[in-house]
Amino acid sequence: MTLTVGVIGGGQLARMMIPAATHLGIGLRVFAETEGSPAGLAATAVGDYRDADQVLRWAEGLDAVTFDHEHVPQAVLQRLVELGVPVRPGPHALLYAQDKLLMRERLGQLGLPMPEWAAVSTEAELDEFIEAHGGAAVVKTPRGGYDGKGVKVVRRGHEAIAWFEDAAVGALLVEELVEFRRELAQSVARRPSGAIAAWPVVESVQQNGVCAEVIAPAPRSMGKLSDVAEQIAVTVAEGLDVTGVLAVELFETTDERLLVNELAMRPHNSGHWSIEGSTTSQFEQHLRAVLDLPLGGTGCRDPWSVMVNVLGGPMGESLDSRYSRAMGGHPLVKFHSYGKESRPGRKVGHVSMGGDDLDDVVYQARAAAEMLAS
Amino acid sequence: MTLTVGVIGGGQLARMMIPAATHLGIGLRVFAETEGSPAGLAATAVGDYRDADQVLRWAEGLDAVTFDHEHVPQAVLQRLVELGVPVRPGPHALLYAQDKLLMRERLGQLGLPMPEWAAVSTEAELDEFIEAHGGAAVVKTPRGGYDGKGVKVVRRGHEAIAWFEDAAVGALLVEELVEFRRELAQSVARRPSGAIAAWPVVESVQQNGVCAEVIAPAPRSMGKLSDVAEQIAVTVAEGLDVTGVLAVELFETTDERLLVNELAMRPHNSGHWSIEGSTTSQFEQHLRAVLDLPLGGTGCRDPWSVMVNVLGGPMGESLDSRYSRAMGGHPLVKFHSYGKESRPGRKVGHVSMGGDDLDDVVYQARAAAEMLAS
Repeated sequence: MTLTVGVIGGGQLARMMIPAATHLGIGLRVFAETEGSPAGLAATAVGDYRDADQVLRWAEGLDAVTFDHEHVPQAVLQRLVELGVPVRPGPHALLYAQDKLLMRERLGQLGLPMPEWAAVSTEAELDEFIEAHGGAAVVKTPRGGYDGKGVKVVRRGHEAIAWFEDAAVGALLVEELVEFRRELAQSVARRPSGAIAAWPVVESVQQNGVCAEVIAPAPRSMGKLSDVAEQIAVTVAEGLDVTGVLAVELFETTDERLLVNELAMRPHNSGHWSIEGSTTSQFEQHLRAVLDLPLGGTGCRDPWSVMVNVLGGPMGESLDSRYSRAMGGHPLVKFHSYGKESRPGRKVGHVSMGGDDLDDVVYQARAAAEMLAS
Repeated sequence: MTLTVGVIGGGQLARMMIPAATHLGIGLRVFAETEGSPAGLAATAVGDYRDADQVLRWAEGLDAVTFDHEHVPQAVLQRLVELGVPVRPGPHALLYAQDKLLMRERLGQLGLPMPEWAAVSTEAELDEFIEAHGGAAVVKTPRGGYDGKGVKVVRRGHEAIAWFEDAAVGALLVEELVEFRRELAQSVARRPSGAIAAWPVVESVQQNGVCAEVIAPAPRSMGKLSDVAEQIAVTVAEGLDVTGVLAVELFETTDERLLVNELAMRPHNSGHWSIEGSTTSQFEQHLRAVLDLPLGGTGCRDPWSVMVNVLGGPMGESLDSRYSRAMGGHPLVKFHSYGKESRPGRKVGHVSMGGDDLDDVVYQARAAAEMLAS
C-alpha cells in the first residue's frame, strides 16, 4: 500500500502499531515527545504536540492522523482539520475522551447507563454529593488523568482541596462509589464510513488503579452480558462519531448492571491480548479503521487469552537475564517489551498467552510476568 | 531487552523481523543494499555487503549478525568473526548454503537422502550423467541461484553451454530429475548452545520454480513422514552446525522417500505461514536463536494454515483500491506487503489464513491473493 498514517505521541501504543503497519505495508510516521521514545523507530519528528506549527509541518501528506494519547489540544486538532488532514478520531469526538465532564453529560443524552455523577466547584457541593451517596464518592479531575492519576476516593470534600484551589483544574467530576463485582472493557473499531467491528468483552483486573491483568473473553459473559456490553460500545461509537478503536471501561455491578466508567479513543491496555488472541489485533484494526479500509475479523483465536502487564521492579538481576529465564520457563508465553527505562510501578511491557485451560493460562502468564518484573 | 541484532540485507525477510524485534524489545539494525529497501525502517547503513570495511563499521556493538540472504562473501564473514561479533549462522555453516556442490558433498558424508548428483565441468561429463539417468537432468550453478534462477532442466549437455563457458561459474552441479509426488519443506531453529525446535513439515506448491503456496502442516504427513522430515532437518542443523532458522526443501518421491533438495539458513518463504499460524513465528524464533535465547513453542495455532504469495501483476487498478477490495472480501485473511515496487512475477507480498476446513482456507487465501495481484 502507499498509505501513510501519522501518530501523535511516541509511547507503547504507537510502538505496537509498528508491527501491524509493517505487515500491512502501511507507512507510519510518529510525532514523538522525546528522542528514544518507545515508538522511536518510526519517529519522523520530535517536538511539542501543543505547538500547532510543529505538528502541521510533520503532518504534511499524511492520509490520516491518529493518537497515542488524548492530550492534543483542540486548537492543534482544528488546525489539522483546516489543513485538510483526516484527523481520526476527529476533534469533535476526541473532546469527550479529553474532558470527563463533557463525556458524562453526552453519555447521559445518549441514555447510557453510568454511575450517578455531578459537577462540583466547591467543598460544600462535594460534601453534599457524598452525603447523598452513602458517605463516600470518587472525585476526578476532568482533564489529564490516566492510570489512577487525577482520581481519588474521598469521604469529605476537604480531601479534594488541592484540586479546588488549582484554578487550572476548574469544576471537578464527582461520581458515586459503585459497588461492582468486577471491571470489564469493551472495544470496538469504527470506520469513517460507519462500519463497526466489536471484539468480545473482556475482564480487566485492576491493582492500585492500574490495569494488571486482562482475560478475554470475560469469564461468565456469554449471552446477555456480552450483548449489552457490545451495544453500549456501539452506541458510544456512533453517538460520539468515534473513528478508530474505542475502548469502553465498564463496571459490572453487584446487581448485574453494566455502567460506563471511562472511554479511550485509541488502542487500550485492555486490548493488548488481541495481538495474539484475535484474528485482528487492535493495532492493525485501528490502522485499518483510521484509513477507512475494511475491518478485519475480531474472533478469538483461543478459548482463553490472558494478558498480564509487566511493571518495572527492583533492578537486581539484569533484564536480559530475567528475559532469558522467563522465556526458558514459558515457551508458549508471548513477550512484549516497550523499550522504556524501568521504574518501580511503571508499565514496561506485557506478556500474553492463549489456551484451552484458563487456570493454566493465567498461571503461566502471571509466572512469566513475575519473572520479568522481579 | 538491551540486545541488538544486525541483519545483512534489506529484503522482505529482514523486513518481517521488524515486528518480532519490536514486540520482544530487541534492537534491529539492517545493512541494506539500497535506500528505500523493504527493511528500510530499520536500516542503519546502506552499502555494499561485499566491502568488509563498510560491514565492520556497521557491525560495531552488535550482539549477533545474521542474514536476509546467503550471498555475503566468506572473507567478510571471517573479518566479522575476527572482530568478535557472533555471526549466526557462522561462516563454516553458511558455506553450505552458499555452494551447492559443497552442500551435496557434506550431506553425503552425513548419510542424508538426496537425488543422485555429480560435479561436471564439461558438456561431455554432463551428457554422460544425463544418459545414465534416464535422458534428462537438472543442472545448477553452485552459487548465486534463487527462485528458479541458476537452475535448468536439460536433455543435452549443450543446453548448459553458457554456464560452462562462464569462467566465474566453475564446475556445475547436476542432479537426477526426481520423480516426486510433491515438494515439502521442514524448518527448524537451533541455538548456538544446541537446543533445537522444529515446526511441522509443510507442503510447498511451486509454480515456474517459485514457491506459490504453502500448506501447514503438510496434508497426509502425520506419523512417519513428519518424523522423517524432522529428523533430516535436525541432522542437517547439527551436522552443519547451523544456528538460527534452517529450512530444508524436500522432495517426496513417488516411491515414498524424502530427498533433500535445497537448504536455506534463514527464515524462508515456506515458513511465512508461521507469523499467524504458529505460537512462534520463524522471524521471532530466528531472533531468539541467533541471540541464544530460549526458543518458543512451535505448535500450530489452527488445524490448517495456508500462505499464498502475491506476485506483481499488471498495473491497472491502484494497489490501494485492490487492497481495499481484498480486505473487504476476506476479513479473516492476513495481508503482508513488502513495500517493494511491483513488477510482473516479483514477490511483493503474501497473504495467509488459518482455519478448520482446508478447502475453505485455501479458497479464501487464493482469492485474496488473486485480487491483490491482478
